[in-house]
Amino acid sequence: MIILVGFLLFSFFSEFECSRPNILIMLMDDMGWGDLGVFGHPSKETPRLDQMASEGMLFPDFYTANPLCSPSRAALLTGRLPLRNGFYTTNAHARNGYTPQEIVGGISDRELLLSELLALAGYRNKIVGKWHLGHQAQYLPLKHGFHEWFGSSNCHFGPYNDKSTPNIPVFRNDEMIGRYYEDFQINRTTGESNLTILFTEEATSFIKKQAQAQQPFFLYWAPDATHAPVYASRSFLDKSERGLYGDAVRELDFSVGIILDTLWTTGVANNTLVFFTSDNGAALVSKIMGGSNGPFLCGKETTFEGGMREPAIAWWPGTIKPGQVSHQLGTVMDLFSTALDLAGVEPPSDRVIDGISLKSTFIDGKMTDRPVFYYRGNELMAVRLGFYKAHFWCWSNSWEELKQGIDFCPGEKVEGITSHQQMNYTTQPKIFHLGRDPGEKYTLNPKSKEYQKAKSAILEIVKEHKNNLTPGKPQLNWCDKAVMHWSPPGCKKLKRCLTPPSPKPYLCSWPH
Amino acid sequence: MIILVGFLLFSFFSEFECSRPNILIMLMDDMGWGDLGVFGHPSKETPRLDQMASEGMLFPDFYTANPLCSPSRAALLTGRLPLRNGFYTTNAHARNGYTPQEIVGGISDRELLLSELLALAGYRNKIVGKWHLGHQAQYLPLKHGFHEWFGSSNCHFGPYNDKSTPNIPVFRNDEMIGRYYEDFQINRTTGESNLTILFTEEATSFIKKQAQAQQPFFLYWAPDATHAPVYASRSFLDKSERGLYGDAVRELDFSVGIILDTLWTTGVANNTLVFFTSDNGAALVSKIMGGSNGPFLCGKETTFEGGMREPAIAWWPGTIKPGQVSHQLGTVMDLFSTALDLAGVEPPSDRVIDGISLKSTFIDGKMTDRPVFYYRGNELMAVRLGFYKAHFWCWSNSWEELKQGIDFCPGEKVEGITSHQQMNYTTQPKIFHLGRDPGEKYTLNPKSKEYQKAKSAILEIVKEHKNNLTPGKPQLNWCDKAVMHWSPPGCKKLKRCLTPPSPKPYLCSWPH
Ligand SMILES: [Ca+2]
Ligand SMILES: [Ca+2]
Repeated sequence: MIILVGFLLFSFFSEFECSRPNILIMLMDDMGWGDLGVFGHPSKETPRLDQMASEGMLFPDFYTANPLCSPSRAALLTGRLPLRNGFYTTNAHARNGYTPQEIVGGISDRELLLSELLALAGYRNKIVGKWHLGHQAQYLPLKHGFHEWFGSSNCHFGPYNDKSTPNIPVFRNDEMIGRYYEDFQINRTTGESNLTILFTEEATSFIKKQAQAQQPFFLYWAPDATHAPVYASRSFLDKSERGLYGDAVRELDFSVGIILDTLWTTGVANNTLVFFTSDNGAALVSKIMGGSNGPFLCGKETTFEGGMREPAIAWWPGTIKPGQVSHQLGTVMDLFSTALDLAGVEPPSDRVIDGISLKSTFIDGKMTDRPVFYYRGNELMAVRLGFYKAHFWCWSNSWEELKQGIDFCPGEKVEGITSHQQMNYTTQPKIFHLGRDPGEKYTLNPKSKEYQKAKSAILEIVKEHKNNLTPGKPQLNWCDKAVMHWSPPGCKKLKRCLTPPSPKPYLCSWPH
Repeated sequence: MIILVGFLLFSFFSEFECSRPNILIMLMDDMGWGDLGVFGHPSKETPRLDQMASEGMLFPDFYTANPLCSPSRAALLTGRLPLRNGFYTTNAHARNGYTPQEIVGGISDRELLLSELLALAGYRNKIVGKWHLGHQAQYLPLKHGFHEWFGSSNCHFGPYNDKSTPNIPVFRNDEMIGRYYEDFQINRTTGESNLTILFTEEATSFIKKQAQAQQPFFLYWAPDATHAPVYASRSFLDKSERGLYGDAVRELDFSVGIILDTLWTTGVANNTLVFFTSDNGAALVSKIMGGSNGPFLCGKETTFEGGMREPAIAWWPGTIKPGQVSHQLGTVMDLFSTALDLAGVEPPSDRVIDGISLKSTFIDGKMTDRPVFYYRGNELMAVRLGFYKAHFWCWSNSWEELKQGIDFCPGEKVEGITSHQQMNYTTQPKIFHLGRDPGEKYTLNPKSKEYQKAKSAILEIVKEHKNNLTPGKPQLNWCDKAVMHWSPPGCKKLKRCLTPPSPKPYLCSWPH
């Protein structure tokens, strides 16, 4: 009798669970396409990620929606391009904006986040790590469908003096529990910090809890050890061939292993889709302290391949067959559509969704023809269709910045492409074949038939795209020192509130 | 009784074979480090090589001895740097020379080749493909220890008119059997040629014959499909994501599979060391028709990592454990020392050998501290020791060549490093840490302790190296149109001899 009940329960949950798998998105910060062994990094220091790839499906043609943290993350969670969801600026042409602590804006209530839709469908949602969709109270994760949070709303920049600038708070759910450099240490000399350990423990304890509760979960694991200032815990310092950045990668690789192991030991591995990727290309501006974009051109902040092509692995034992490589063009926005599809939730029909579901790509290797749009701020800089990528605008960063040593394409120089002024090629786009020329070095001859054919196909796509494009209200235009983290939710309980200055909004300056 | 005899025979041969494994060196031509899926090429089009790597040991830190065909191949077969074995020129400073059909020189009789030493030890030796150690009769493979040959002494350049320039002959053993573009077609428009099929059949039939004869063999498989003009057979044309170059890579990958399968079906896989590598970095000068050097700087002809770091896989089922990565610094000259070690042959003691045996690296993962020397012609351009690489001379190619569109570092520009004039840094070398900075972009600060320590360790090595250095007689100084392939051995039998002009030796011109 007991056996029978056990069997019935098992059948019930097994059916239930199969129709509603857990979703685990592992989003790295500024990790480059070329940082993983399986993507060719010469140091070959990511054994767990390489194993994960061999057990699942590798996506060498996977993209972010913007070469910077906040818009990329907003796109992932809304399934929509930053220009639609408001994560852009009109303060200047083609400038990447994000959410520093001076930002006034954040994720609009009118956006429907993956977390909100999955919560409605009965999922328990947790975000671990960096949020970056706005830090004023109304923008925080628990206001947007997440049930739990451990992490921060911003980058771990600092330390600040808490006088002219407050230190960035760390949150537990909807209240701050301390601040970086005060309660959560990052040693700016040695690079030591135990944050990745904390983020990993938060992930595994959540998985264990949900496995026990037999409730489907959405875990958005967003550690930021590979974002400057790069950090690693003591036992990983000086362990890699690659210096501190490599130490951070090794620790994240190790942590991925711990999390996957936890899925196995809690018995939910076969019912969990894990997707590993990064929010933008490696920050080449950080030089040896940044990651690698492999053979691709330039890095973070740019719309060249190095800025927007991301490492990507889908893992789902028993459902995704091991050892596969898919050249499907994918984007972070597809994670929104895919997760909804897997959860059996209809995507919102009142708005344009830019993501597509990759479910049948995972299961049957299906290929869907679709374009990739490369935005920088409010400008469509480039479009990829098949192997062809047309650049309508080319820009690395300004001469003024370059003179200060800021370079998004160090050691690289492709005439007219990695330009230091904004080059307008809208009438005759620069077109590359990314199969023969993944490094974007050799433009097609505009007189060739190949060019003409690629150009007209892409222009068709652009026309359609622009016809269906209603920009959201730009969230990244206004800044104000008064909105900084002086008095985050929960500061009173801790007696850690600081006094904000009087409001004095100004247009944020986005130099690149 | 029959069973007993069978058993004894088996024991005998098994012991015999184990002490003298077959040696199979697969040497690609101008294939780059980044061309294999396992080394991160985004097209991921080398399934058999990736599988070979997963079944064996991958060497991400493996080097050639010179960034050009002939000296690299001479170094592999002699175990000695080109400056010792004569494969260099003194016509100008730091210029790469090779063996075009005007070359007068070739491999000296005073050199002891791997083929000669293995022949003495009872091995049957075959070279399939490109020889490139000189084409006058005394320099050909059968004069230097090989028992069989199918291939050519030179690159497959052409077609020529057989008047001002003869077409390059193809040899069977010690006689020509035809010429490229006459009897062995390479379609310069479509890129079609069945040569890789022929080279593969030559390899498999030799393996079958030797397996049957139960005689150990040394097979030097040197197909040249990835050297300009790149070619592939009809069924591979237009099959890759990467154009004709990718088609050539796919066919070679497929052929590697056929050869490994043949080792299995003939029962000798467990007794054969297979080593896959390339003779120099990808020829970036060929632009989209060339290969990829992954994240490394520049390409063929240069002493930057892109010119000299090679894809490398060791495969030996049952002896080399699967799934290993070794960061041992290796060179093509180690193949000489390793093969002798495996065959139980003492290396010649009357001369300096630059190779080291990798046997215990293969078997036990042993790491040996040793330097890598980067030569360009007669000049020691750079030295790697551990992670540190010191450049004493930096040069890409001349301004004159650049103006003609010849560029060994297209799209790359590292100030003072990828220079268009020869930069002399012998008093204060430019030092890079190849772990943190595999792309050679960020020089160490000469005032730092790290720089000072690396510099003195490397200068010590250089001093020792130069003290033990007796340059061989330079073989690449003299050219003469009279020595071209007018009347190669065997031409009479075919009635295909052409009339040479009168001898008129001149100093070869080596522009880079
Ligand atoms: Ca980021
Ligand atoms: Ca070559």
